[in-house]
Amino acid sequence: VSPAPSEDEWIEAIAGRFERAPGALLGIGHDTEALRVGEEGTCIVSTDVLVDGRHFDLAACGGRAAGRKALAVNLSDLAAAASRPLGFLVGAVLPRPADRALFEALADGMAETARRYGCPCLGGDTNAGDGPLVLAITVVGAPGPMGVVSRKGARPGDVLSVTGPLGGSRRGRHLDPVPRIAEALALAEARLPHAMMDLSDGLSRDLPRLCAMSGVGARIDAALVPVHEDVGAEERLAHALHDGEDYELLVAHAPLAPGAAPPVPLWPVGRVTAAADGIVLATGEGEAPIEPRGWDHLAD
Amino acid sequence: VSPAPSEDEWIEAIAGRFERAPGALLGIGHDTEALRVGEEGTCIVSTDVLVDGRHFDLAACGGRAAGRKALAVNLSDLAAAASRPLGFLVGAVLPRPADRALFEALADGMAETARRYGCPCLGGDTNAGDGPLVLAITVVGAPGPMGVVSRKGARPGDVLSVTGPLGGSRRGRHLDPVPRIAEALALAEARLPHAMMDLSDGLSRDLPRLCAMSGVGARIDAALVPVHEDVGAEERLAHALHDGEDYELLVAHAPLAPGAAPPVPLWPVGRVTAAADGIVLATGEGEAPIEPRGWDHLAD
Repeated sequence: VSPAPSEDEWIEAIAGRFERAPGALLGIGHDTEALRVGEEGTCIVSTDVLVDGRHFDLAACGGRAAGRKALAVNLSDLAAAASRPLGFLVGAVLPRPADRALFEALADGMAETARRYGCPCLGGDTNAGDGPLVLAITVVGAPGPMGVVSRKGARPGDVLSVTGPLGGSRRGRHLDPVPRIAEALALAEARLPHAMMDLSDGLSRDLPRLCAMSGVGARIDAALVPVHEDVGAEERLAHALHDGEDYELLVAHAPLAPGAAPPVPLWPVGRVTAAADGIVLATGEGEAPIEPRGWDHLAD
Repeated sequence: VSPAPSEDEWIEAIAGRFERAPGALLGIGHDTEALRVGEEGTCIVSTDVLVDGRHFDLAACGGRAAGRKALAVNLSDLAAAASRPLGFLVGAVLPRPADRALFEALADGMAETARRYGCPCLGGDTNAGDGPLVLAITVVGAPGPMGVVSRKGARPGDVLSVTGPLGGSRRGRHLDPVPRIAEALALAEARLPHAMMDLSDGLSRDLPRLCAMSGVGARIDAALVPVHEDVGAEERLAHALHDGEDYELLVAHAPLAPGAAPPVPLWPVGRVTAAADGIVLATGEGEAPIEPRGWDHLAD
């Protein structure tokens, strides 16, 4: 067994082996891909896979919550692209023997999220296997009012903001993520985002991805990072930076005019800098590089 | 544990819980969905999930063959819709601890199929889990020369043809399926298919699905069914009807003019009849209903 790759290494390995699709506007490494379809159309696509024991504990939460979460985290990727949901496909592997009550609960949960965010089921494929429940969902969307928004486009001097407090999601909130679709569309309507992503793996792991795609650095101000009320008394900032599964949006945008209110609540957390300045956390004690200690889906 | 549902019951359970997406042209129960995107565009989407121990034996075949097969069977669904590949997304669950050599072999295999059929990678998501390797692929395509071809549209009197001999794929051929994309596009160029699907689960299980979607019956002539050379001496017809994983196309089309040659080799196997006539196999001993004994991905 050769050493486990990180998720970012997997992405590189994939990207290096494939030519860019002729109609693909972004390339691998964003939350979504945008694909030209015909003369006029663009569709936005993204896949996220959830596994029992990693993203939820099926025995504890039940099929309905698992189904809800699986679709919601996929919708969060469409939010990152400020796009509108059109529908989703689901590939499921049920633990053998496949249980009717489980699949009905999963379908109920997905249907609940589907109705809430207007994202109907387009089809799918189901199997049974000798392992945990796997839900692989692909969402399809259409570009929102700014067209295709991605991790690329942040500029030095931009403000970095998040759409909500971070950390502590594993106390239970991670099971009911709120994909920030309405917020993303409102931000796009206001032409605010230069670059955007959703925070699924923790700010410390996700921010470097946005910086890499934009070719910039970042300076996060520790005092500004909003810590979620779910975080306990200990190491509050570390939880906010590293816990992951927040599903808030990270937005790079021009500074707001003095006194101007953003269209949705935004918490500024820092600034975009030049790439050479690195990705740093500023505290009362000075600046230090941010270590990506967030969630890695391939780590043990 | 409640009784295991069949794959068709799962599809019904899903379809009953979701409204049809506003831009969806087909509805659940076809090989693909066709989705209107913008004013002019239509994208074709489909998901197929493959699991180690069910669709391939990773220890025996290796990652490269698994990667090749996973993409190829998905492309077969695009062929069923006579559509052109635009790209694919991959959701993978690697057995823990995630092994770099395995993921590189998987990527190599997918890249090989991707190049052969012109279907680049658009993105994906990778996880590790306490179970077998899972590869969930979603393909995105564009309509071919006939627009959206589906399981719907077969008419009584149509000829039912297949694009190649059936049966015996588990002798090894199932690992290297040939998605009939070029054949499907040639058939569509000739305006031949009224309805089409790919034979993944065996003619006996797949034909009733096409009949259900078209609202027709079918009469298969046992003497006409082409049996693959991989099938041994015993129960040759049963293997051709039930083995599955042929990935040939089943095409309902108007009878060819006398002496006319189809644009690609076609083996006529029977006729479309009225729904009331059922789905029957005609042999020298008379007619009998065809029992769907093919591959069910949820059965034990």
